[in-house]
Amino acid sequence: MNNDRAIRSNIRAMTGYVPGEQPRDGTFIKLNTNENPYPPSTRVIEAIREALNGDRLRKYPDPSGTIFRQTAARILGIDPDAILIGNGSDDVLTILTRTFVPEGGLIVSPTPSYILYRSLAEIQGARYQSVPFTADWQLPDPWPIGGANLTFLANPNSPSGTMIELPALERWIEQVGGPVVLDEAYVDFAEVNGLSLAERPNVIATRSLSKSYSLAGIRFGFAVAHPSIVRELTKVKDSYNCDVLSLVAAAAALGDRDYLRETRAKIVATRRRLSDSLRTLGFDVTPSQANFVWARRADRSVTSIYEELKRRFILVRLMRYEGYGDGLRISVGSNAEIDKLLAELKGMV
Amino acid sequence: MNNDRAIRSNIRAMTGYVPGEQPRDGTFIKLNTNENPYPPSTRVIEAIREALNGDRLRKYPDPSGTIFRQTAARILGIDPDAILIGNGSDDVLTILTRTFVPEGGLIVSPTPSYILYRSLAEIQGARYQSVPFTADWQLPDPWPIGGANLTFLANPNSPSGTMIELPALERWIEQVGGPVVLDEAYVDFAEVNGLSLAERPNVIATRSLSKSYSLAGIRFGFAVAHPSIVRELTKVKDSYNCDVLSLVAAAAALGDRDYLRETRAKIVATRRRLSDSLRTLGFDVTPSQANFVWARRADRSVTSIYEELKRRFILVRLMRYEGYGDGLRISVGSNAEIDKLLAELKGMV
Repeated sequence: MNNDRAIRSNIRAMTGYVPGEQPRDGTFIKLNTNENPYPPSTRVIEAIREALNGDRLRKYPDPSGTIFRQTAARILGIDPDAILIGNGSDDVLTILTRTFVPEGGLIVSPTPSYILYRSLAEIQGARYQSVPFTADWQLPDPWPIGGANLTFLANPNSPSGTMIELPALERWIEQVGGPVVLDEAYVDFAEVNGLSLAERPNVIATRSLSKSYSLAGIRFGFAVAHPSIVRELTKVKDSYNCDVLSLVAAAAALGDRDYLRETRAKIVATRRRLSDSLRTLGFDVTPSQANFVWARRADRSVTSIYEELKRRFILVRLMRYEGYGDGLRISVGSNAEIDKLLAELKGMV
Repeated sequence: MNNDRAIRSNIRAMTGYVPGEQPRDGTFIKLNTNENPYPPSTRVIEAIREALNGDRLRKYPDPSGTIFRQTAARILGIDPDAILIGNGSDDVLTILTRTFVPEGGLIVSPTPSYILYRSLAEIQGARYQSVPFTADWQLPDPWPIGGANLTFLANPNSPSGTMIELPALERWIEQVGGPVVLDEAYVDFAEVNGLSLAERPNVIATRSLSKSYSLAGIRFGFAVAHPSIVRELTKVKDSYNCDVLSLVAAAAALGDRDYLRETRAKIVATRRRLSDSLRTLGFDVTPSQANFVWARRADRSVTSIYEELKRRFILVRLMRYEGYGDGLRISVGSNAEIDKLLAELKGMV
């Protein structure tokens, strides 16, 4: 066999999505992948410990995650059949792509945004088109591309941290017409969310437990959509896509409302301080509704700042977008981590 | 939006893979999904407990699973870069399909076998063709279908438990010519395996920790293939497809060779006793190299036996294949579970 011919040409041609650096030696202050600086709820740890007893590990998990779905449905005030469980919200985005987008189909998203949307199109052998946000990070009105098989909107958006408010969002959804994914990975840090829009037959909201619940390590996310859509998505997901430990962890995490409220409040307070301080240092910082801020400079590229921070064992995410220049996406770490970052930056800019 | 039009026609048309029943009330003797009746290695439990300390849960896992791959590579005597980690071996089979099979492409496998192969083709929008095993569960020689984008062989096979031995396997791989997946989910219960064949550029071996390591609940599997293939598969997998707890569990599991040897020996002994007893009761039982046996009757359908066992709280898997009739796939449980099954069957047939 000639490998080059056997592998699909769209796969061969792509470079592959590159996730943020994950150094394993623990000496870095990691502000590059939007992890939560605080530990998860103790209830999560207890739930996992409990599941290690008995025969949960040796048996297959519940394919549909009934107990998690019932818990989440009660807390969110929705129908359990409107929930699809995922091995991280990336798994959910993959399932959505495979359900809606044929080879040669079209995926659309605003730009600059989550670069995985393009990778999902490449893997599926579909076309990808981006639509620039307006200068103040709103969606162009009217929306220029109809007829896409799937249109993704990260809301809050990454890297900007900005948010499309509900009235504009509703108008946009009507203009798009076709299936829309509201990627709400960061929405727990925002003032509002679009969950109620997922009652519409063409809107799917996705959520992640990686950020607001401090569980990036366990891989759990979910989609909220009309039950008729969830039924189709279920055909496409791997039967046992969520393991038993992540299922009990996720149910325990959502059940601890106090944890979410307290952690969120700390992060929102630090976010404000970080944004203000960066502006004082001469950065342009967009108003963030997420657990990171997007910092650019009108006067220069920030690449050398990224590199110098890395030499000083502080990792932030350097991002470049075509026609848009570069910027630093800085996760909202603990107060001590942000103090250290700001102290280093002061000597640098 | 009309949902019916927005969802791909191949997805709408499919019924979806139906996994074995997973009753959650614990009163059933479960011999239907090939779970291991013995608990996992205590080292696995310790490794998971250990990972609950520190900040492993709140951080993203290592995308490529370096420590697991190094451990597995040392034990299996292969290159770490020849290993791809998966969220269960079903995840690996999905990744392989998406890497090799375009929409409208062709997937082939022998039949009767693992019915997921057809589902993977349906999800991908590809064609599926099956080739009947010979009457003694060998592959037809010559193999009738060349030019498939991917050809799957479960070896040992499910539901038969039979195995294609190495010389025949090598001849078959050469006849197929194109990419071949040796699905070795059950191979730890067999006398030999096909790992050395995965050095060939067109052979991918896949493994599961669900059965032989008693870890169906944590979802972990992996592929072994030429590093040039693993590089392409890595583009297609979700970046963080394996969570941190499954990664440490998997490394600990593979590291405990004594556990595997002892558990395997118990299951192989029970398998022999189960097979012999079923034959005495008038069943046709194929010689199994897996942790289940395939029992059919020349004189009658086994559907009523399945139903009567279920009424008595014993679950086995009833399987029907077109042109082939039905049979019971019975997992090798503990000795006590198998005693109970045989006692019930004695009064029934």
